[in-house]
Amino acid sequence: MRAYDIIYRKRMGQELTTDEIRFLVRGYVSGEVTDYQMAAWAMAVCIQGMTPRETADLTMAMAESGDQIDLSGIRGRKVDKHSTGGVGDKVSLVLVPLVAACGAPVAKMSGRGLGHTGGTIDKLESIPGFRVELSPQEFIDQVNRVGCAVAGQSGNLVPADKKLYALRDVTATVDSIPLIASSIMSKKIAGGADAVVLDVKAGAGAFMKDLDQAFRLAEMMVAIGREVGREVAAVVSNMDQPLGYAVGNALEVAEAIETLRGFGPKDLEEICLQLGSQMLRLAGVAPDGESARKMLLRALRAGHGLNKLIEMVEAQGGDPSYIRQPIKLPRAKRIVPVAAPRSGYVQAIDALEVGVAAMLLGAGRETKESAIDLGVGVVLRKKVGDPVEAGEPLAELHVNSERRLDEARERLAGAYRIGGERLQEPPLVYGLVTSHGTERWA
Amino acid sequence: MRAYDIIYRKRMGQELTTDEIRFLVRGYVSGEVTDYQMAAWAMAVCIQGMTPRETADLTMAMAESGDQIDLSGIRGRKVDKHSTGGVGDKVSLVLVPLVAACGAPVAKMSGRGLGHTGGTIDKLESIPGFRVELSPQEFIDQVNRVGCAVAGQSGNLVPADKKLYALRDVTATVDSIPLIASSIMSKKIAGGADAVVLDVKAGAGAFMKDLDQAFRLAEMMVAIGREVGREVAAVVSNMDQPLGYAVGNALEVAEAIETLRGFGPKDLEEICLQLGSQMLRLAGVAPDGESARKMLLRALRAGHGLNKLIEMVEAQGGDPSYIRQPIKLPRAKRIVPVAAPRSGYVQAIDALEVGVAAMLLGAGRETKESAIDLGVGVVLRKKVGDPVEAGEPLAELHVNSERRLDEARERLAGAYRIGGERLQEPPLVYGLVTSHGTERWA
Repeated sequence: MRAYDIIYRKRMGQELTTDEIRFLVRGYVSGEVTDYQMAAWAMAVCIQGMTPRETADLTMAMAESGDQIDLSGIRGRKVDKHSTGGVGDKVSLVLVPLVAACGAPVAKMSGRGLGHTGGTIDKLESIPGFRVELSPQEFIDQVNRVGCAVAGQSGNLVPADKKLYALRDVTATVDSIPLIASSIMSKKIAGGADAVVLDVKAGAGAFMKDLDQAFRLAEMMVAIGREVGREVAAVVSNMDQPLGYAVGNALEVAEAIETLRGFGPKDLEEICLQLGSQMLRLAGVAPDGESARKMLLRALRAGHGLNKLIEMVEAQGGDPSYIRQPIKLPRAKRIVPVAAPRSGYVQAIDALEVGVAAMLLGAGRETKESAIDLGVGVVLRKKVGDPVEAGEPLAELHVNSERRLDEARERLAGAYRIGGERLQEPPLVYGLVTSHGTERWA
Repeated sequence: MRAYDIIYRKRMGQELTTDEIRFLVRGYVSGEVTDYQMAAWAMAVCIQGMTPRETADLTMAMAESGDQIDLSGIRGRKVDKHSTGGVGDKVSLVLVPLVAACGAPVAKMSGRGLGHTGGTIDKLESIPGFRVELSPQEFIDQVNRVGCAVAGQSGNLVPADKKLYALRDVTATVDSIPLIASSIMSKKIAGGADAVVLDVKAGAGAFMKDLDQAFRLAEMMVAIGREVGREVAAVVSNMDQPLGYAVGNALEVAEAIETLRGFGPKDLEEICLQLGSQMLRLAGVAPDGESARKMLLRALRAGHGLNKLIEMVEAQGGDPSYIRQPIKLPRAKRIVPVAAPRSGYVQAIDALEVGVAAMLLGAGRETKESAIDLGVGVVLRKKVGDPVEAGEPLAELHVNSERRLDEARERLAGAYRIGGERLQEPPLVYGLVTSHGTERWA
């Protein structure tokens, strides 16, 4: 078998065999297949595509390229959750304890973020004492005892994906459905999940700008699950504007706590209910989505989700008073409002620009080496559909340093489109893709 | 400008600008554009194609990437000739002196061969004393004085093509019409040609197996010529079986001399007349192909081509007695016949296998470092259409060493297909592509 022939076959639009895909991935990790060969192959995949079977083979070859986590010590079906990434996406902070409170074990591994804000474990580090580095045994024991745990990734997970992703990033081969799908799914499978619930974001602030593309990505990941024997459900949701109001690490923790207390933004609560319903269904805790939703609402109203978060924070060494009194969380020194330039209605908020503004203030990492400022970020005061008077604050910048403040302010102000007409509010959830098929709601 | 965006645009099938192509080629030569980026781009080009305008831009960007030869010191229009490569292709040895004898200046630069036999300059080194390394001034003076010269390439000609070709060779991006066309044409343009006549080979022994592809390649090179202001004509010819009878360096020199004496194989003579007619036409020596052909035939019959070869060999320090008495050329120690396994008609001769047999005997270089054995090779005794008796020799191996002889014999025997039926003889020339359009004759 030669890399050359495999590249050539994909160039010609042919379907590769399982052995060919395995040969390529193994060779790439070992260094026998070069970067330039892999780049040529990735480009051929971008243009010619891959079948679900090929994509599943790529997923498994990558999942098997490094360590694989064994979660069999945890009782019950382990359902992992993954978001394709959005601005203001603090869903995991709400969902992990809420779903655990309903009786489904949640063993969540999370990377550090490279984007507009930190990842889930960066955000949790806003709580003093919180330990994200758990040994595999600590992790398993805690899920069995408490019902949930969130830990940083340890070991050498999916090195093939790490290497291929870095290459795709510089060769214009990022936005390919089979390559994105296999990248996400390989990490979930190596992480030991029995089932996976995906939040596929579509819109200006998401990776997938186009709704049809987002559904195709969701369908591809459900198809991979079918091929490799993991049940997968995907919610396709709107990321035209940020989720909730807060964008920034401690700011998002506070908003997640508000949500678990029952006072969260409606869009954030709704997406948590949608994803949580699928998680409870796939965990076998609820028979269907509808009864799962009722369980989640009941737990939310009763404060069980919040209590579970407190339990989890305590178990991981964090100070639970920060959850009870979120006012104690790290805060920025200064709040700079951005005023509306005219009266009218908010017609659109470019989520990506809001994210960039937060990152410029220090909420996210521009490079792997950047340090995150946990207190800073953006809080929106108006969302799409809201009426606004000229001079009224549209949003706030939470600032610790003057550096790049002007740029951030400009980005944030530019993210808002205000018009005389009140446009129809965009749908929050576009549909659901499960092993039973695709439902498009909007 | 970023390489990423240029790669992405080609991935999406968009037409690149002149500046984008220049940026990419310059960046690649300087090292700012990496091998993996160039590999991704080349794959996108293979699948999405390039317009003639883009291909012309790539050609010029590559031609300008290194030294460019200035032939303006030579009087008259300099027409270069290039073959896409075949087995037994000794056309230049005949064509250079014959065309020069008709009054068109021929300044031929030639590389050393990496293939079944050496290149033209390797072959000419069969003549003792023959110097292939001429200074630019010597080269120009000789063409003005004698009418023709053949010299090895000096200087740093088209480094972009060298680098890109090596990359394409390992990333399954070789057989792309725009990439092949720009590779060939960039070298001709950097070599200082005013006009170019191409011999585009099609068939089992050629780079282009498919006739339609060969015509498309010819048309692309004529189109490049139109874009960059060089007149180009291309003859599309058959390479299903080797050209002439001899495959090997000194063996081919001897066959070329026979042809210049008027006793050459008909196919070799005919292809020389076809290509020579276009060369005389583009040089402005003959008004059209028909009168050019008459001039060539007259020169051939009168021995003017042979005399011009003798003049050229003398001018370059070679011993002209080797041209007058080709028996003096290097010869192999032993001739091993390959007998026909059955009676019938030769239906096909796989040119590529004949070439490999010659290379195994030492006629060609397997790697850049290999030394060539000038005397060895293959001489065909039967060609397609010839009747043959069982046991009669089909071909001869001219051998200096037993090493790999068995393998060579097997390859040569296996190249022949003999059947009971006399098949129609394949056409030698399929057609002609010029700035006036495409003529398909067969």
